[in-house]
Amino acid sequence: MIQLINRLATHETNFSSRLTRLVSWSADSDDSVQQTVKNILNDVRLNGDHALLTYTQQFDRFETASSETIHVSPERIDTALNAISPEQRHSLEAAAERIRLFHQKQVQKSWHYEELNGTRLGQQVRPLDSVGVYVPGGKAAYPSSVLMNVIPAKVAGVQQVTMVSPAMNGEVNDMVLAAAAISGVDDVCLVGGAQAVAALAYGTQSIAKVDKIVGPGNVYVAAAKREVFGVVGIDMIAGPSEILIICDGKTPADWIAMDLFSQAEHDEQAQAILISDDEAFLAQVEASIERLLPTMEREEIIRKSLADRGALILVNDLDEAIALSNQIAPEHLELSIDDPNAVLPKIKHAGAIFSGRYTPEAFGDYCAGPNHVLPTSGTARFSSPLGVYDFQKRSSVIHCSEQGADELARVASVLARGESLTAHARSAEYRLNDSKSSQ
Amino acid sequence: MIQLINRLATHETNFSSRLTRLVSWSADSDDSVQQTVKNILNDVRLNGDHALLTYTQQFDRFETASSETIHVSPERIDTALNAISPEQRHSLEAAAERIRLFHQKQVQKSWHYEELNGTRLGQQVRPLDSVGVYVPGGKAAYPSSVLMNVIPAKVAGVQQVTMVSPAMNGEVNDMVLAAAAISGVDDVCLVGGAQAVAALAYGTQSIAKVDKIVGPGNVYVAAAKREVFGVVGIDMIAGPSEILIICDGKTPADWIAMDLFSQAEHDEQAQAILISDDEAFLAQVEASIERLLPTMEREEIIRKSLADRGALILVNDLDEAIALSNQIAPEHLELSIDDPNAVLPKIKHAGAIFSGRYTPEAFGDYCAGPNHVLPTSGTARFSSPLGVYDFQKRSSVIHCSEQGADELARVASVLARGESLTAHARSAEYRLNDSKSSQ
Repeated sequence: MIQLINRLATHETNFSSRLTRLVSWSADSDDSVQQTVKNILNDVRLNGDHALLTYTQQFDRFETASSETIHVSPERIDTALNAISPEQRHSLEAAAERIRLFHQKQVQKSWHYEELNGTRLGQQVRPLDSVGVYVPGGKAAYPSSVLMNVIPAKVAGVQQVTMVSPAMNGEVNDMVLAAAAISGVDDVCLVGGAQAVAALAYGTQSIAKVDKIVGPGNVYVAAAKREVFGVVGIDMIAGPSEILIICDGKTPADWIAMDLFSQAEHDEQAQAILISDDEAFLAQVEASIERLLPTMEREEIIRKSLADRGALILVNDLDEAIALSNQIAPEHLELSIDDPNAVLPKIKHAGAIFSGRYTPEAFGDYCAGPNHVLPTSGTARFSSPLGVYDFQKRSSVIHCSEQGADELARVASVLARGESLTAHARSAEYRLNDSKSSQ
Repeated sequence: MIQLINRLATHETNFSSRLTRLVSWSADSDDSVQQTVKNILNDVRLNGDHALLTYTQQFDRFETASSETIHVSPERIDTALNAISPEQRHSLEAAAERIRLFHQKQVQKSWHYEELNGTRLGQQVRPLDSVGVYVPGGKAAYPSSVLMNVIPAKVAGVQQVTMVSPAMNGEVNDMVLAAAAISGVDDVCLVGGAQAVAALAYGTQSIAKVDKIVGPGNVYVAAAKREVFGVVGIDMIAGPSEILIICDGKTPADWIAMDLFSQAEHDEQAQAILISDDEAFLAQVEASIERLLPTMEREEIIRKSLADRGALILVNDLDEAIALSNQIAPEHLELSIDDPNAVLPKIKHAGAIFSGRYTPEAFGDYCAGPNHVLPTSGTARFSSPLGVYDFQKRSSVIHCSEQGADELARVASVLARGESLTAHARSAEYRLNDSKSSQ
């Protein structure tokens, strides 16, 4: 019989190697994907709309795709806003409002300061001019992904947000269009795959080049984004989604089981881990998993995810749980414990922290306010949730007074000559007060 | 006869295509470099120190390289601090102090806010645990690069900064070691190339794995950083350095010529462009170039850089100059004009802005305070100077009160069901005040 979910305990001798194996994940895409993507990128770069539309007709079976029909009309968007239920409309708007409020706190402002001699230093903060947002199409439609990627860009002040999404047979999901309208997308284009990434990166006759491309996609989209990185900016390349729950055993076992499911249902590679110092509670959660699994619509996906990559981990105490979490650096961390605030300062690496028994990860996926685009596969060690920061950029500003220039010229001259860069040195020395001495 | 520098004017019919050709630059590294780098990375990942030391003995002719000798001793660092001149020591310390002061203003703090129902949202800001800084070795030694990469990491609070630098025959530059000591490097390792990047990314017996790798290097180092991106964080992959000067004709022509040289002397691919609405001034600068060039130590490099990639561009007025600058999005922008402050708000894209006639780019390279690691090749459209930001990361924090959870559960449930993610919906619904209704 196949195990329901892996059981580990830190006191076991092989714990460390089992854990390493369990959490390891590699982003390598195979060479054939890379070659296909390179060909498509090159074709669209050279042939513009012609290539873009040919691929769209071929891959998305969108036979009437043309320079005009790939742009969604305002009428079609109005239709979508009216087609969804009032409850759905309200929920999208409520989520958008909360996301907007949170992200407004992230806006960075320009600053300057002046030194005694009149020299001024600072940094000028500006929004990006234009951004492309990739929204996956196909079976699963994710309006929440539209909100999470578009709203931070709009809060930053990005003027042009172009959304691309593949439309099988030219059909597009009403909730996705509604989310685009509510979040303020400027242009919705029904193209997808590597060809859409190429259009955004290089520009075509009907799609303007953007400065940065964000949003999730399949292996072809991910490979295309990696390839155009440098021509445009990109967000992170995401791995499978993960949750790590630390629970003291006092949250209902069914709640925790369902929280694990909510991660596992994304796909078979998703990872759901529960850590507790209460062995009896781990057994209760396993029983809940067994009982609840047959009631789930995505039972097969959840079953495989839990068996392959899920784990219940027994630890000696809460401190050991925290140390493990810091080692794993999870995308989502639930602190389902009595006093989560006391633990917060000890959390070193996590994309988002869900604090307390009443904060399931699902809130963060949709409507709590913070972004649901988060660093996966341990990259929370060095990267951050998507935010307004990703849509602003800084220019350093240096303005020297004559007196300030004299002081800096002396230091720059010595250091430049130490690096044998004499043009640097002489350029600095021209700004000495008594510059004749150095010429 | 070979031209000294390209002459362009916006009123000429072929201006746009000539400019495009002039500023275009591609980062593509050839396949043989990539394959060599992949082999080295793999070897060090699998064989650790043994591979690292073998490559170091082979490529750097550092025959006594061992797990011990690659670490620079505190005694060797003291020797370096005493070997440099007092003037050099003072200049390094003065530069470090100014860089530190500027970067301290960039430190981001954690923040939280509470809603009326007791729900709390925020973000927790943390330094990265460990960072690797690559410092090129060989003929050119750049202590300024040590200061610019290490100080922001230390200001962010990074505990472990490991510097790697190739040491030909085991020899290392005193100014570089002094800069390492002054900026607070924790460990200096005499290894370089792709093998050093591999050691930092994967860890070996004698070099601990880091979370992020920054710093410039040759094509092998750049390819290696690109390859390990995702395993660790990296900074940008830099192209050739560039300057764009906007001058109204009232700065001495020799100063501007030397400012152009200070960029061109970096390497033959470096780009130096002057834009002015004063045709006579452009001719004066060309005359200065011709007269000053033979006096330069790096004459040949400067001559080739200016002939291949340099330009004097005549425009109709200042506004046209600014529009051109925004189009090019230069790494360094000098505003050598009467009232640079008035122009600042119009500058949309630039890595660093040098404002006024008394602020040559060389000040920013060494000691003004802001970072000299800047976005090149037009990437200032979407990226920023290196800063403390690059060594901090954020975790979102969500803490729901019971009342807050009830409100969020309703919204999350509707949206999750709209995406057919019912485990998400049910996980949210458990947190409804009257949760029996939904089970």
